[in-house]
Formats: sequence, C-alpha cells, structure tokens
Amino acid sequence: MSILHDRIAYPNLLERIKTVAEVLPLFQNGMTLGWSGFTPVGYPKAIPKALANYVETNRLQGKMRFNLLIGASVGTETEDRWASLDMIERRWPYQSGKNIRKGINTGRIRMHDKHLSMFAQDLGYGFYTKDLGGKIDLGIIEASAITKEGNIILAGSVGIAAEIIQSAEHLIIELNTTIPSYEGLHDIVLPEQPPHRQPYLISRVGDRIGTTYVPCNPDKIIAIVESKEPDNGRSLGATDAVSERIAGHILDFFQTEVKAGRLPANLLPLQSGVGNIANAVVGDLVKGPFSDLTVYTEVLQDTMLDFFDSGKLKYASATSLSFSADGFERFYNNWDEYTRKIVLRPQQLANNPEMIRRLGVIAMNTPVEFDIYAHANSTLVGGTRMINGIGGSGDFLRNAFLSIMHSPSVRPSKTDPTGITCVVPMVPHVDHTEHDLDVLVTEQGLADLRGLCPRDRAQLIIDKCAHPEYRPLLQDYLDRASHECLSRGVGHEPHMLDRVFRMQQHLATHGTMKIGSWD
Amino acid sequence: MSILHDRIAYPNLLERIKTVAEVLPLFQNGMTLGWSGFTPVGYPKAIPKALANYVETNRLQGKMRFNLLIGASVGTETEDRWASLDMIERRWPYQSGKNIRKGINTGRIRMHDKHLSMFAQDLGYGFYTKDLGGKIDLGIIEASAITKEGNIILAGSVGIAAEIIQSAEHLIIELNTTIPSYEGLHDIVLPEQPPHRQPYLISRVGDRIGTTYVPCNPDKIIAIVESKEPDNGRSLGATDAVSERIAGHILDFFQTEVKAGRLPANLLPLQSGVGNIANAVVGDLVKGPFSDLTVYTEVLQDTMLDFFDSGKLKYASATSLSFSADGFERFYNNWDEYTRKIVLRPQQLANNPEMIRRLGVIAMNTPVEFDIYAHANSTLVGGTRMINGIGGSGDFLRNAFLSIMHSPSVRPSKTDPTGITCVVPMVPHVDHTEHDLDVLVTEQGLADLRGLCPRDRAQLIIDKCAHPEYRPLLQDYLDRASHECLSRGVGHEPHMLDRVFRMQQHLATHGTMKIGSWD
Repeated sequence: MSILHDRIAYPNLLERIKTVAEVLPLFQNGMTLGWSGFTPVGYPKAIPKALANYVETNRLQGKMRFNLLIGASVGTETEDRWASLDMIERRWPYQSGKNIRKGINTGRIRMHDKHLSMFAQDLGYGFYTKDLGGKIDLGIIEASAITKEGNIILAGSVGIAAEIIQSAEHLIIELNTTIPSYEGLHDIVLPEQPPHRQPYLISRVGDRIGTTYVPCNPDKIIAIVESKEPDNGRSLGATDAVSERIAGHILDFFQTEVKAGRLPANLLPLQSGVGNIANAVVGDLVKGPFSDLTVYTEVLQDTMLDFFDSGKLKYASATSLSFSADGFERFYNNWDEYTRKIVLRPQQLANNPEMIRRLGVIAMNTPVEFDIYAHANSTLVGGTRMINGIGGSGDFLRNAFLSIMHSPSVRPSKTDPTGITCVVPMVPHVDHTEHDLDVLVTEQGLADLRGLCPRDRAQLIIDKCAHPEYRPLLQDYLDRASHECLSRGVGHEPHMLDRVFRMQQHLATHGTMKIGSWD
Repeated sequence: MSILHDRIAYPNLLERIKTVAEVLPLFQNGMTLGWSGFTPVGYPKAIPKALANYVETNRLQGKMRFNLLIGASVGTETEDRWASLDMIERRWPYQSGKNIRKGINTGRIRMHDKHLSMFAQDLGYGFYTKDLGGKIDLGIIEASAITKEGNIILAGSVGIAAEIIQSAEHLIIELNTTIPSYEGLHDIVLPEQPPHRQPYLISRVGDRIGTTYVPCNPDKIIAIVESKEPDNGRSLGATDAVSERIAGHILDFFQTEVKAGRLPANLLPLQSGVGNIANAVVGDLVKGPFSDLTVYTEVLQDTMLDFFDSGKLKYASATSLSFSADGFERFYNNWDEYTRKIVLRPQQLANNPEMIRRLGVIAMNTPVEFDIYAHANSTLVGGTRMINGIGGSGDFLRNAFLSIMHSPSVRPSKTDPTGITCVVPMVPHVDHTEHDLDVLVTEQGLADLRGLCPRDRAQLIIDKCAHPEYRPLLQDYLDRASHECLSRGVGHEPHMLDRVFRMQQHLATHGTMKIGSWD
C-alpha cells in the first residue's frame, strides 16, 4: 500500500484521490479561495503551482483572478508567482513576495491587512466576502493524514485551516507524503460565534483544550491530491553586531525586572517576531541566566530547537513551525522529544488577546520605525508603501504584560549608510500607539517608558535610542516643538505639523534623512 | 444610632471614625494617592474638597502636590479644583476639567493616558509608581457600607477601587450616608497576577463570578469619614438633529445586518460611549424594532433607565452609574426593579478584551476626527492638545464584533460654522488604527469598511461621510495622492506627506479648514 493510502484512514475518501491535472478544472475566475499555511509552512503547493503553470502556458494572465484568504504569508512559489501572473484580485490579511507587493502598491491587487487573530474570527462572520455572498468557494488544505472518521490531521501549521475547513463550500486536500503524520501536535478548537462563545480554558502555555484533528464533514472533500513538495521554510539570517547589542539590552532589562520583583525568575511566556533581532534574543536566552522558560508565540524558528536543546525552554505554543529544511530534519530526528513540548494552535487562539493578557506574555517585535512619543509603524514605508502587513504584532503588543519593540537606530539609504533614522519625530503611519508600547530598544540603548508622560518619553527615547548622528536633530525638534506648543497651552504632545515629516521628504529628494535644520 | 454607625457592621472600625479636619494632616506633599470613582460617580468628595480649602487658605499652592491614580475622571470640584491650586504632579489615566487640562497642556501636570482596562492591570504590577517604590501611599475610597468582616461595599462605581483597596498602604473610607447601601450591585474580582491568572468565566452579560464586597484587611483602614456630598453625575445634553440622523443610520445598519444573518435578531451586547450621539442611539433603540437587548459597557447614563423602562433592555453590565441627580432619584425609587438587571464590575473586567471579544460586543464611540483611511483621533486636538484621554474606547473598539465610530461631519470653528471637517486626509494623532474600525458614520451617511482595501475605504468614506463642503477637497486629495503614489509603485495607501496636514495648518492661520486647493 502506498504512503498516500496509508494516511487516508477513511475508506470512502480513497476514491476521491485525484491527480493535480484532474482538479485544475475546478478553479474558475473570480472564486474565493481559502488556503491553509502560515509563514510559509503547511500551505498547499502542488495545486497552486500547477494552476500557475496552466495560466502561464495558456496565456490566461488577468483572466483567472482569485480572492485569496490565507492565515499569513505562504511560499513565494505560490502566492508571489500567482501575483506575477495577475491571478490575485484580493489578498487578506498578510503577504510576502516581490511581485505581490508590487501588485498591491501599484493598485492591481486589493489587500486589507488585519490583526491575525481578528482576521480568523471575522472570516467566520462572513465580513470579508459579504459582497460575494459571504462564502468561501473552495478550501485547499495541506494535510498530513485523514482519520478513520474523515477528520483532518494538519501539517506544520494551523493558521486559519480549521476555519476554512469549517466554512468552505468544498475542500481539496493536498496530502503531503514527504512529511510524517503530525497527529498529536495540534490542539484544534472550532470557534463558536457570539453570543454562544465560551472561555478558552488555557491558563498555562501547554494546556490543551481541543482535538488533535480538525473535525470535517467528508462530503465536502471533493478531491485528495498527493503532494511531494517540501515546505519552503525560513532560514535564519546571519547574526550581526547590532542585533546582538539590542539583545544584550533586553536581557539586562529582564534581569533588572526580576531583581525588582516585577517579573518572576523564569520570566513570563515569551513572544518574539521573526528576524535577526528576535533570533539574537533567543540566542542570548540559550546562553543566559534564566531557566524553566515558556514561549507563547506565532511561529517557531530554528533557534527554538537550540533553545529546547539547552534545557532552558520548557514548553512552546505557536501556530506554525517555521523551520528551515535543516531545522525540519533536526525536528524529525528528535520527534518524540520536541513534540512533547510543543503545541500548534489555530491563529485565532495563538494570537488571542484573551490568552495573551491572561498569561502575561512578554511581546517583542521589530517595526519599520518608531517616533519620539512611542508610536510605531510596522506596515507602510513612507506612510504609503505596503511591506507585509501588521500580522500578529498588534495582537501581542496591545495585550502583553510587557510590550517591547526593537529596531536598529538607523538603516542605510542608497547613498548614505546611516541615511535613515528609525527614530523620527512622527511616524507617517501608526500601527501601534503610544498607549500600547512599554519599552523601545535600539543598539544604542533601552528606553523604559512605563508611567512617563509624552514629553518625558520623548526625552528618554532621544537619549537612549536615537543614533548619535540624529540625536541633535531630534532634540532640536523636541525643544522647538515644546517651546511653540507649551507657550500656546497646547503642549501635551508637542509637534510642529508644518515640518513634522521633513526628514521623510528629505529622504525622498536627497537620499538621506539628515536635514540641515528645522528652520 | 446614626446612619453612619448603622452602615459600619465591623465594630472595631467604629473607633476609627474621624472628622474631615482630623484626616487632613495625613496628607503630605509628594504622596501617591489612589481614589475610587469613575466618570464622576463614586469618588471621594469631602476630603479632597477640604484639602483644597486647606491649601487655598494656607497659600500652599505648589507645595502640596500629589500623584493621582483614579480609574477615570471624577467631579470637577475635586480633581479640577486641585489642578487650579497646583496640587497635581501626575495624573493617570484620564481626566476632565478646564484647569487640569490647562495644567497638562502647559506642561505643569504630567499625564499618561492609557486604556482603562490596561491601566487597572498595570497598576497592580507597580508600573506607574516604579520610581516611587512601586506603592500607593494612601487610598481614598467612597463606600456605601462596611460588612461585619470589615470588607467594603462600594458606591455608584467600581473603577479601580478594588485594586486600590488591595494595594494601597493605607486607606481612608468616605462613607456616603446620603445614598443607600449598594450591597448586591457589584461583582468584585481581585485580579491575580500572571502566571497565576485564571479565565474570567463570564459568557453572558449578567454572569457573576465574584463577591458583592471588596475584600479588605481592616487594619489598613486608618480613618472613616462621613460624607454627605452627592455625586456630581452627568446630565444629558439636549438631543440635536445631527445626532439623530447619525443614530438613524446606525439603526438602519443594524436592521440590514440582522436581515443578512450577520447579527442575531436581538443584536449583540452594546457598548456606547457618552455624549449626544450615544444617547440618540439609545433613544432610537427605545423606540426601535429590537428587543431582548443587552448592554456591556463602561457607564450607564439616564437614557439607560428609559431603555429598561421600555422593556427592551434585558440586562446591563458597567463599571459606573453615571446618572444625573434626577436619574439617581429614578433609580432609587425603583431600586429593586433596576438592580436585578444591572451589575457593576471593576473596569479591569468591564473593559477587558477577553469578555469584549467573547461576548461579541458592538462598540460605538465618538472621536475628535477620523481620516479617509479610517484612522481615528480620540485624544489630541491638532495632534498636540489633550482633551480627556483614550479612556475605554480602545479597549472596546479593538476587540468588538463590530467597531463603529460616529461623529458629526463638521464642527464650527470660531469664525466658520462648518470650519472644521471631521473627515481629514490624515489624522495628526492616531488612537485607533485602520486595522480596528469597521464602520464610520456621520449625519451624511454610513461607510461599511469591512473587507475593503485602503483606497476603496477612502472613496467610500468621502462619498458617505464627508460634508458636501469638504467632499471635493478630499476627493482631490485622494485623486492626486493616488496618481502620485501609484505611478511610483508606492500606493497601497496614497498620501502626499508635504501637504497632508495643510487643512489643520489652515485652520490655525485662517480659522477654517477650507483650503483653496492642494497646489
């Protein structure tokens, strides 16, 4: 018996095994599609790639366009290739790739970015498809097995797979036979809608309240296709001195807080975004003084395997295993040891304010830039150009015990190695407000903003976080704005609206944010 | 026996009854004080007023300054009078009054505004007093009775009273004998700190999970003072045509949603802010087609009594009874009937994301202004001048089933009756982001933004919400910004940063936001 047959324990479904070519006619222009997958793991690969080939071969660019609902980003060989073939009409709530980004920023693709926990929930309410009859025409789900009742065992991520399986009109399963059955790793809860919703009884990171499979009406499954495509997971970037300095400041801060009695000795559950700084922080925790730690986050990257191996990480909850190819090999080679310490949840629960607040999560994320009053821009460069989306940063930062944002103090422009300051007078787009952020960190230092009024925050951020080349300019802005606004009795949060974006304008015209003066 | 003695069922406390004059020496310059009270009900009155008189008489202005922690705003005869006598060093997380506002906007008073649910929680973590040793020196609590175990029965609001009683070094009770004992109206839960926090098992508006009193160590109580000062509650403003048109749009929208199956026939629990529009909405619900309704909100105003009387409101949960003097009289005259349908909770629970999301609350609030991409400014006029604070608007709008903001489309300036548009290209301060708001409403119409990308949202907001006198200007802004940004491939959310605040600048120099053109 083939691996494929072996993984399908519900006999009636065996007759629905189809080839990729056989399912392509099911796709029609204008359909709303829901995919599994999250930061690119556990997404369908064989069918999206085959459909892209079909569109390319038959020159159907612009004639086969879809509304794509996916938990977060998926591999560039799928959504980004689709964008390059003009196959995407709408995309919610997050994306990744050069072509899809181009489509969004030139107006060809409609994107609505939304908090990931909220997106999963609103999807069930029909908010995103209300002008299309409120339905998802077709769900494509990567699975690792099907139970004898016809229920679905997902693969390396959960994301919104459960919501799609629950609400799509029809389902196609991509059963990936290159990976083991993931049975036992997931904790699936199908959300009720209000007013019937009940508390999520998770009070420790590892608590399980659901099933290991996604309940599924097998009649919805119109095809099962075998996939032999590996996940296109994330490799880690190289560490760098700036990230390590930032991580050092954060670890020092944790020690101070433990000493002051404001954090337990084993801290509180950690959330960290992806990227070099997040990995440097985990790297420091691997070597650091804390033990018996827990993680309540979105995605687990390769560094988490080191963290487990160090004996310091007790348990991790996430919605996706965003490992590299090497990471997956390590994971499979030590399956029993890792999987008894990991749970994968729907993103509606992984990112839920209820648990984030209850557990007292410590949230750490990287923005594009932040301003002197502690507003942060996570999505739109220059206030207008979409990068990826807000993702889960708001879910965590708004509800965390400690909300930390970390960033290099400067980034290079095309012509100036320190041409872009990440500390600006006012961010041109706000994703996280001053009401939400507790701590800002750059390689220059850490600003603990708790309990400070805006002007005191601004002084501390300039002193601790700004790069020395920009510090005098920012200080001058604060001094002038304070003088102008306080004397007029309008100075709770001083600004000069006629000059507030001058640094951003200077970058556009001169390739650097180093303006001469504020005159 | 006096009413006062009658209300103190714990005999040992009788000997701690003191006069107001006797407690004044307990107050020392630089102390951190926690008061009960919320949107001005249930706050201490006799002692703050006497202390103000003492400072005034003895010319101690600027020599008796305090850090004030109160759940939300309290009566102007207390905090605002204190501000006028330079008695406030810091004020968290919200305030109200001409003098306190002036102190904040001229830099004499440090204010940090924070989401009300988060403030209550962070208070327990010691975040706001960490440079002062993390403690609250003295709590002043208005109570309506003391139980035979020495526990506190609060008065017309809960706010952060429970957190203060739990964490202050010492307590003074103002026992108000002009009101009845409120025993039975409150549902008090003392928050645990993470990692020991448990789910709040509230899955219907009226569920009770706590005690009717605040548990208190009576040794902390250093004085009980009788107060005969009535609450200085909120009278309703007169209704106006603009508010009624807005309410009409909202009721129509509810009917459409019920018809489409996206809302139950009895809607979902309603939250509404204070003010004319909120009252007009409740007024319409009193006359409207919906019944069996529930309310999960911060404060109940007089209109809620009409709502109960109509038979259409089944239950209301809040943290404060913000009635007028007449409203309180109605409430007391029909005590049994009203109180079996009302529960008052700590603001940490009344405004908690956990319950707001679980219950599927419909949130409705008024901002200062919103922009064409659906960011809203609730706190800082012109981006710099503090009004009151964010209050609970973020707690609700970020977690609601439907997040609705309503505003008149224009406000008068000093010289132009339509000199200020409430729909602008970019708000100069963001409290609520585009990721949070579902529906914007003015008297012009209602824009349902769910599922729309930024440019589509902008067009809809201009068409539905903008005042006709500003519509062409806003359209021209959108068209020019779109043209500029899309052609450069940076147009997910088009803006012209060099001109984006021109309307606000024009208002400052010309008394109106009607600029000639964007050239």
